[in-house]
Amino acid sequence: MKLYSSRFAPNPRRVTIFLAEKGIEIPTVEIDLAKKENLLPEFLGRNPLGRVPVLEFDDGTYLTESVAICRYFEATHPEPALFGSGARAQANVEMWNRRMEYEVLANVTGCFRNTHPYWDGRIEQVPEYGELCRRTLEDRMKWLDGELSNHPFIAGERFTIADITAVTAFDLAKILKVRIPETLSNLSAWYARVSALPSVASTSPSRKDG
Amino acid sequence: MKLYSSRFAPNPRRVTIFLAEKGIEIPTVEIDLAKKENLLPEFLGRNPLGRVPVLEFDDGTYLTESVAICRYFEATHPEPALFGSGARAQANVEMWNRRMEYEVLANVTGCFRNTHPYWDGRIEQVPEYGELCRRTLEDRMKWLDGELSNHPFIAGERFTIADITAVTAFDLAKILKVRIPETLSNLSAWYARVSALPSVASTSPSRKDG
Repeated sequence: MKLYSSRFAPNPRRVTIFLAEKGIEIPTVEIDLAKKENLLPEFLGRNPLGRVPVLEFDDGTYLTESVAICRYFEATHPEPALFGSGARAQANVEMWNRRMEYEVLANVTGCFRNTHPYWDGRIEQVPEYGELCRRTLEDRMKWLDGELSNHPFIAGERFTIADITAVTAFDLAKILKVRIPETLSNLSAWYARVSALPSVASTSPSRKDG
Repeated sequence: MKLYSSRFAPNPRRVTIFLAEKGIEIPTVEIDLAKKENLLPEFLGRNPLGRVPVLEFDDGTYLTESVAICRYFEATHPEPALFGSGARAQANVEMWNRRMEYEVLANVTGCFRNTHPYWDGRIEQVPEYGELCRRTLEDRMKWLDGELSNHPFIAGERFTIADITAVTAFDLAKILKVRIPETLSNLSAWYARVSALPSVASTSPSRKDG
C-alpha cells in the first residue's frame, strides 16, 4: 500500500492527520503541486482528475478522495472512532463533517482558488466570486461560534473527522489573511484546543516558515 | 420521525430516491422554498442554516445534510446496500459519490445559483462564475463518459448513492439548458438506464410540467 500526497494542501493534510490519530504509518510519495507533478501522465494514470491524495493498493487499484481514504482506514482500524460510533452518532458526524466542508472549507478554497496568486495561470479565476466566498466564510464563522457554545468539538464531545476538516480549512484561511476573530470566543477556544493536538501541530502549514 | 423536505430541489430528492429504493416511508412535511418557508424562524429552529431536508427524531433532535440522512437509513435498513458492502467497496462508493458531488453536482448548482433568475434577489449572484461552472460541467461530462465505458453504474456493477447524486444533478442541469450530448454514448446510456428506475422517474422534476 502506498499513499501519494502533498504535505501542505488541505485535503491531503486531512488524511495525514487522520492516519496520525489512528497510529497508522504508510509509505508516502510526495507529489509537488507547485511543480504540477499531479498533472504528469504518470500521475493522471492513478487519478485522471489530477488530485491528491491517492491511495494505491497492492493489487494495483487506486482510491481517491480524502474522506473515502479516511473511511477505508476507519473500517480497517476502528479505534479511535473518528466517524462516530453507532448509527445516530455516525450520521451526526457525517452531518457536521459536511457542514464543515460546505460552509467552511468550500468558502476557504473558493476564496483561495479565485483570489490567490498561486492559482493565477493554473485555473480560470473569478475574483468577485472569491471575495463572495470570503464574506460568506466570515458569516459562517459567527454561526459556528454559536454552535460551539454547546459542545467542545465540532460534532460533540469527541474529536472527529469534522474537526480535522475544519482545522485544515482555518489553517489555509491564514494565507488569505482571514483569521478567527477573538470576539468569537467559542470558535477561538476550539481552534486553540484542536491546534494543540500533536497530529495537527506537527502538520501545520505554518511550520515550513518556522 | 418526520422529514421536512422539498419535492423538486436536488438534495431533498436524493433522500426521496434513497428512501424509495429502501422501501422506507416516513411522514413528510413539504417546505415551499419558493415561498421561503425554509427561512421562517420555525424552520431555522430545526436547521439554523435554513436548508432542506431535515429529519426530526421522536426525541426532538434533528439531523440535516442529505447524505447524513441517507447514511442513517443505510445503517438502520442495510438492504439493498446503497453505500456498498465491505470496507473496500464502501470506500469506492464514497469516492464516486464525492466525485459526483464535486465534479458534477457542484458545477450544476454553481451555474444554477449564479445564473438562474430563480436566485436573483435571493443570493448574491456572480454570473461569470456560473458560466465557468457550466464550462467545467461540460468538460467533466466527457471525463465521466470515459469512466462509464468500464462499468454500467457510476461506482461499478450496482446502483448506489453515487448514481442518485449524479442523476439529480443532470436533471437539474436541464433547466440550465445543459443536456448530455448524444455523442457521449456511455453517459447517455447510463442516464437512460437510471432515469427509467421507478424511484427516479416518479420524482423527476419535469413531471410537474407534464
